[in-house]
Amino acid sequence: MLNVIIAGFGFIGRKLVRTFHKKIDLIKNVDSKFKIIGVSDSKGYLYNLNGLDLKRLSSVKRLSEYSEEYREGRSTEEMIEKGEANLMIEVTPTNVDDGEPGLSFMKAALKKGIHVVTSNKGPLVVAFRELTSLAKRNDCFLLYEGTVAGAIPIFSLIKRCLQGDTIRRIMGILNGTTNYILSRMYFEGTSFELALKEARERGLTERDPSYDVDGIDAACKAVILANALMNRNVKFKDVKRTGIRRVTQEAISLAKKSKFAIKLVSVIDKRIEVSPKLVPINHPLCVHSTLNAIHIETDLAREITLIGRGAGEETVSAVLNDVLTVIRETASRSRKI
Amino acid sequence: MLNVIIAGFGFIGRKLVRTFHKKIDLIKNVDSKFKIIGVSDSKGYLYNLNGLDLKRLSSVKRLSEYSEEYREGRSTEEMIEKGEANLMIEVTPTNVDDGEPGLSFMKAALKKGIHVVTSNKGPLVVAFRELTSLAKRNDCFLLYEGTVAGAIPIFSLIKRCLQGDTIRRIMGILNGTTNYILSRMYFEGTSFELALKEARERGLTERDPSYDVDGIDAACKAVILANALMNRNVKFKDVKRTGIRRVTQEAISLAKKSKFAIKLVSVIDKRIEVSPKLVPINHPLCVHSTLNAIHIETDLAREITLIGRGAGEETVSAVLNDVLTVIRETASRSRKI
Repeated sequence: MLNVIIAGFGFIGRKLVRTFHKKIDLIKNVDSKFKIIGVSDSKGYLYNLNGLDLKRLSSVKRLSEYSEEYREGRSTEEMIEKGEANLMIEVTPTNVDDGEPGLSFMKAALKKGIHVVTSNKGPLVVAFRELTSLAKRNDCFLLYEGTVAGAIPIFSLIKRCLQGDTIRRIMGILNGTTNYILSRMYFEGTSFELALKEARERGLTERDPSYDVDGIDAACKAVILANALMNRNVKFKDVKRTGIRRVTQEAISLAKKSKFAIKLVSVIDKRIEVSPKLVPINHPLCVHSTLNAIHIETDLAREITLIGRGAGEETVSAVLNDVLTVIRETASRSRKI
Repeated sequence: MLNVIIAGFGFIGRKLVRTFHKKIDLIKNVDSKFKIIGVSDSKGYLYNLNGLDLKRLSSVKRLSEYSEEYREGRSTEEMIEKGEANLMIEVTPTNVDDGEPGLSFMKAALKKGIHVVTSNKGPLVVAFRELTSLAKRNDCFLLYEGTVAGAIPIFSLIKRCLQGDTIRRIMGILNGTTNYILSRMYFEGTSFELALKEARERGLTERDPSYDVDGIDAACKAVILANALMNRNVKFKDVKRTGIRRVTQEAISLAKKSKFAIKLVSVIDKRIEVSPKLVPINHPLCVHSTLNAIHIETDLAREITLIGRGAGEETVSAVLNDVLTVIRETASRSRKI
């Protein structure tokens, strides 16, 4: 019985709408009354309590092309405040400085008892405990599988598939751009500068490449993993962080001779650290190109590694799984009443 | 409110009891009335409706050492037929020929409306559809995470963490013994015969090594994966199977020069095939020693790889996760009434 609003109609938002359209049978099989009632961008929103036409919405690049129902000057907050939605999917651009605008949207939604699914790291890095407390207080789901390592379902894996295990350490290659750069340096012998240039040309870097190469992105993800999975209460400033700018071709060649690669590894145990590390080339964590990998050490399973696409449209897999979890769990709740 | 009986008190059964004892706070946190009321071996069973003493049970190697309550000559069926349990954990020895004795135990339990969790491949290879239909008809859970790839939570991953994805292909290294042999041949240049001898000396092979080296074990797992995750209805005989006996050191060396390793790979798509295959050494599937790996191709996430321990005591992680799933889901059901 979900009435869904989507905040954000960028790359992920559009891909998500197309995926809802394509998979509507699968979704309606779990929730026959599922509908998208609103979608916003930074300038306004579309809204229809009877449900928007997913086919038409899938075909537009901008919301204004959908119909004249779209009017500028209406805010996402206004859409939330209507209070007719019971799930908001928050996919606005990431801002790890203050989490905005996503943070305000998420707070507004949770305060109204609206469940939240997001792929936006910013709000969770800035205000993890505040948001999870707010969600708990309002009896809401707050799911964020898409925020770390894209399509790799690390949070649901640990919460649903390793329920009896105690997590002792998490190590991850959590930034695809730096992994691409380091892989080029390892396999092709290129310099850091040239590999970075290639990454930029392939559209793999943020506008400000320091976000990737100085380990800021990886550190943000480490903060979320630590708070969500290891019951910590840490902030970005708590991460000991070293980027890959000073990794030389010489260091990589030397490592290679001893059957190691240099990777930007996030380690979460007692410490939270992001730094270039030697990884044995036959270790499961040693993945290449833009792949991400997460290695978990536990008391029972001992070690589990998950490898997958860390960014891009594959993230929609994680968002959709969270949405289906909300549908199933709320259906089970409402049947209880 | 689970009353649990355990059929089988071998390596996994004992480890499981010790794990229940160690993790009892975690379990009681989800089900305050959880208790083990019965444990059987091939000769008899222990039974106490008030719950067996987990501390004492953890310290014995044989059930007869627990107390005089253990008497020989009573069958596991008799324990099931009491009908006082609501979950049976079935961890008797694997028999892939006719699935017995586990198959009869599982049928008996399901017919009485007792949920079943198992790590025993045999019954599922022999009678997958029969057992899943029986479970459905009796409104029972039948969970079997421990049957394939030990501690790797492949079934719950796909059912809980990739709910929106369509699985297109599964490729796996599903037998740790053959992977150990092939890894020794790859890294140390040993012959197949020597590597097999080493594997036997390290206790890695079954009494009949053909179970491993001829791909029988891997084929059984492929059958379960195909039936459980790709909606197939296949039997052991439907697997096209080639073992590793004819993999020579020469073939491995030649592959190595081109940056490939030879691995015993199970492929499940339209075909179901187990055979030695060339795997690029930088592919996530290319894991070594006794590790298992499963590579899933889907429409949304594109590719996800899971790597972990494929056998041994780590399997208890999978069994415990299944038990906790039954506890949570039945608690949620009973609250609904």
